[in-house]
Amino acid sequence: MDTKYLKMAMEYRTSIDALMGSKEHADTVLVGGNVVNVITREIYKADIAIKHKYILLVGDCKELIGPETTVIDVSGRYLSPGFIDSHMHFESSMLTVTEFSRLSIPSGTTTLVADPHEIGNALGAVGMKAMADEIDHVPSDVYLVVPALTPDCPDLETAGYDVNSKDMEELLNYKNIIGIGELQGFSNAKHVYRNTPEIITDLLASTMYAKSKNMVVDGNAPELFGKELAAHIISTGGKCSCHETTTKEEAVEKLRQGVYLFMREGSTQKNMAECIRAVTEEGMDSRRCILATDDMVAADLETIGHMNEIVRRTIREGVSPAEAIQMVTINPATYFGLDHVGVLSPGKQADIAIIDNLEEMTIAGVFLKGNLVSLKKELLIDLPRYIYPGVVKTSVKIGPISEKDLEIEAEGESAQVRCIEVIPDQNLTGKSEETLRVSRGVVEADTKKDTLYIACVERYNRTNNIGKAFVKGFGMQEGAFAESVAHDTHNIMVVGSNIKDMTIAVNAVIEMGGGIAIANRGRVLSEMRLPVGGLITDELDGHEVSRKIAELESVITKDLGCKIHAPLMHLSFLALSTSPAWKITDKGLIDVNNFKILPPVVK
Amino acid sequence: MDTKYLKMAMEYRTSIDALMGSKEHADTVLVGGNVVNVITREIYKADIAIKHKYILLVGDCKELIGPETTVIDVSGRYLSPGFIDSHMHFESSMLTVTEFSRLSIPSGTTTLVADPHEIGNALGAVGMKAMADEIDHVPSDVYLVVPALTPDCPDLETAGYDVNSKDMEELLNYKNIIGIGELQGFSNAKHVYRNTPEIITDLLASTMYAKSKNMVVDGNAPELFGKELAAHIISTGGKCSCHETTTKEEAVEKLRQGVYLFMREGSTQKNMAECIRAVTEEGMDSRRCILATDDMVAADLETIGHMNEIVRRTIREGVSPAEAIQMVTINPATYFGLDHVGVLSPGKQADIAIIDNLEEMTIAGVFLKGNLVSLKKELLIDLPRYIYPGVVKTSVKIGPISEKDLEIEAEGESAQVRCIEVIPDQNLTGKSEETLRVSRGVVEADTKKDTLYIACVERYNRTNNIGKAFVKGFGMQEGAFAESVAHDTHNIMVVGSNIKDMTIAVNAVIEMGGGIAIANRGRVLSEMRLPVGGLITDELDGHEVSRKIAELESVITKDLGCKIHAPLMHLSFLALSTSPAWKITDKGLIDVNNFKILPPVVK
Repeated sequence: MDTKYLKMAMEYRTSIDALMGSKEHADTVLVGGNVVNVITREIYKADIAIKHKYILLVGDCKELIGPETTVIDVSGRYLSPGFIDSHMHFESSMLTVTEFSRLSIPSGTTTLVADPHEIGNALGAVGMKAMADEIDHVPSDVYLVVPALTPDCPDLETAGYDVNSKDMEELLNYKNIIGIGELQGFSNAKHVYRNTPEIITDLLASTMYAKSKNMVVDGNAPELFGKELAAHIISTGGKCSCHETTTKEEAVEKLRQGVYLFMREGSTQKNMAECIRAVTEEGMDSRRCILATDDMVAADLETIGHMNEIVRRTIREGVSPAEAIQMVTINPATYFGLDHVGVLSPGKQADIAIIDNLEEMTIAGVFLKGNLVSLKKELLIDLPRYIYPGVVKTSVKIGPISEKDLEIEAEGESAQVRCIEVIPDQNLTGKSEETLRVSRGVVEADTKKDTLYIACVERYNRTNNIGKAFVKGFGMQEGAFAESVAHDTHNIMVVGSNIKDMTIAVNAVIEMGGGIAIANRGRVLSEMRLPVGGLITDELDGHEVSRKIAELESVITKDLGCKIHAPLMHLSFLALSTSPAWKITDKGLIDVNNFKILPPVVK
Repeated sequence: MDTKYLKMAMEYRTSIDALMGSKEHADTVLVGGNVVNVITREIYKADIAIKHKYILLVGDCKELIGPETTVIDVSGRYLSPGFIDSHMHFESSMLTVTEFSRLSIPSGTTTLVADPHEIGNALGAVGMKAMADEIDHVPSDVYLVVPALTPDCPDLETAGYDVNSKDMEELLNYKNIIGIGELQGFSNAKHVYRNTPEIITDLLASTMYAKSKNMVVDGNAPELFGKELAAHIISTGGKCSCHETTTKEEAVEKLRQGVYLFMREGSTQKNMAECIRAVTEEGMDSRRCILATDDMVAADLETIGHMNEIVRRTIREGVSPAEAIQMVTINPATYFGLDHVGVLSPGKQADIAIIDNLEEMTIAGVFLKGNLVSLKKELLIDLPRYIYPGVVKTSVKIGPISEKDLEIEAEGESAQVRCIEVIPDQNLTGKSEETLRVSRGVVEADTKKDTLYIACVERYNRTNNIGKAFVKGFGMQEGAFAESVAHDTHNIMVVGSNIKDMTIAVNAVIEMGGGIAIANRGRVLSEMRLPVGGLITDELDGHEVSRKIAELESVITKDLGCKIHAPLMHLSFLALSTSPAWKITDKGLIDVNNFKILPPVVK
């Protein structure tokens, strides 16, 4: 046995010395608070003593107070384990791990489990490992669960890198990576099984490898029931989660079949109120109910909050505060095997959210690894901006496109075209057809009919595909905007009223090496660089990102006349080829339910 | 990534094929039963389909039935995950792993977590590894959690082998070993801390090593509260169990401080009824409440049952059947990280107890890894007796003793002597003094005062110590009995009315190489060989052991006039130097609370 274990033992000895009555004392004691005990689901008065990074004692801690002990009066407040977000993507916020932490720690979040699925699609292992590297520089606990498959549907889209079982050994042995994340391939199990069954076997091989290392395999099973759900569960090795459950019926089925129910409540998708009915109406044991955000934008983190806000909403649905808090503490810690966090008891990491008002979940302060890091929503610690290495900043590999590349050709004077119909706040879309004018062999968009051009430009220089179609729902009157954020392969998405502005916007994104650009009347109105994988900025801090996105969306709304809120988020999800009905990838307009590529013009 | 993972993947593919509607079908389907869902704490009608070793689906399984599928009608019966005994010692039953399984499987037990603490004291790593080897030959899931310290109190007793941190690398990397078991040294934390603090550091080093491998550290914290309890928890790395909690107050404290409450209910110690009040009276979340036996004798397994019986008693205390069953299924599986058992859901091992009557917990049949292994309490599978290698059969290393060795000397005509007072069904003892006659310099026992000789003979040829004292409570009128089972160091214990029969009994045990011997009036009345470590027989099957022990106890009762029931078990626990007040080891009469060795004769 290595002598390092003896050295570690000596560190713990001082904690034991303090408890056994020697001259050692606690570093910090919080006195007079009400502890939310997520083990017993009780709330009662107790002090908490901290030494080093750990909790020494929860109870009467008077005797642990020495001359150098910092004593903090938390009378009337509530002490909860720090909160865990069990499934999220940093990329959705366009923030680095550091900047996400800057915005989320003051809300009581101390642990994040992130799926670097987006940067994985753009850059493969090198991108995910770069993110894992950044984690070493943040004060909170952050873990990654990596994709076992990119792109989600290899037949229907092109990613920057094809992740599969060959990458698992490299990834699952890398620091801060604790398992496999979403098995997107199974979101549409029936189709994958019938169309690309070899993917199932490859995913199973990755699962077997992860399980042999006792690691997590998250999985994800939207709209699956019965036998198909069972097939999904078995593909994850028998223990999995789903973060895309949308109805009570589905929640009941998932829990009964052993799935850990990640109730999603993010910036756009909000599923908790439906899912929680399995508990509030059916009285099910909630030990496998867990709250997660999936996708959060910076502005929401800054203004609304993070897991504290979701707990607040869960309490509003009729769950007791202690039970709701279990869903962001002990429940996810148990699922992930993160034994050192999620409860307030001796030996656990001293991650503590101090809550002013339990019903409102207002956070008075936050302890992280034994240190007070936030007070009244202000971060007390220095958190230097993290700069990513150049190797992850070259994900846009193509040169400028021409207007001709975006044109949709048709014969005659008019054409029947296929339109994706955007549904506000949903990944799902509608589908419809429209008749448009054809001028000199090119179909013309028509803002009066709210029928705009949409295109997806492959940006990794692997195929140089450009998928083209039409879209309804943005309501824009002029101009175009483009972004290198486009779930899940993150090619360049562009929507516009005219091809000239679309071309300008796309080329601005290409020139920036990834980002967001808005063009109108032949010039770029506003832009934002996203140099890290074309997804994340390491040039602005969290607050600056929040302001910059607001500014971009304001330009899209005011200058282009866009009617939908959060237009950037909505555009980026129109590439998500796993959620019905119609989507667009670099390969073209995708009929998701039938696994087919459709031409934009009806024959 | 090794190609073996791809091969494993191919095996799972056939299950997925069956679920996705190919020509594959389930191997077995149980139809018409009521499933006890320990995840949601519900009971409802559902079929269970099995393929290979695994559960395919719980629900409507009609479509999974093919021409070769075995269909079993379980209408009106209840289907529960197989039961887990979370803390037990095979040695207490004197049975091999195989023979314990023979008696416990028909009661629904499919997983055992055993602490080979006794064989570890007698033989060290070689004994524990031999037990781990046997596990490969039994059909049920068996895991070992090994001691980090033998003997419990190095200053006060002599074991056959001194286990400490130096052994952890060898043990914790051996097959079927999943962590560290009881940290006996901490049962008396205050004393250990004050008297042998270096042990704390050594235990912590072992803990750190186990935690670095993500393994279990059980710990054990009888009668610890507040700061001392916290010190114990920290010594286990922050996650531990206690299987010796005896009062509701202690149970409440343990659960609040994060200890997994193993409610012990074995052949002698019965603590569940007190512990469960934390749930039934205080309404605490029971997710960390777990049932365990610690010590079971063969006859109880055969006639009363195993975990099913303990669940039955727990239901009698006012817990719902589903919640009580959680305490022997999902709760322990979660604690140990045994993700493949403990619930009935797709991908989990098909370990199923079929229950006739939920309130009575009568077991109709048992599935183990997909096979029906027991029906109406009869084992259906062939379970060949396991023979241990010779290396573990040489634990008695001393030659015969003489009568002189057992004499207690005193001057004068009478002597004031110290007597251990046996308390029926408890490890704890009383203490008292008695005046005895002295004849030719030797103190004489007095059956009229129920004051007998007791001795503990070191059997490993390390010190040749013999501890001697007096005992009250056996009520024997003549003869003596001896055994090489003596918790926890397992030297030879002997109790008797006269030194001649005691010597004969001890020498019979020595000659057998370990076992039990009863002597009266100068001859051996009955004996039983325990060749494996002096603790276990591999010469008799489970049923034969049950009968043999009954026969021995009958001789002790009828021929020697012993008044206490289970005299062999009671004698063996009088050596347990960790539970107050007075005990006896090879080093002498132990004042447990004061960590002192007392002479048998008061000065």
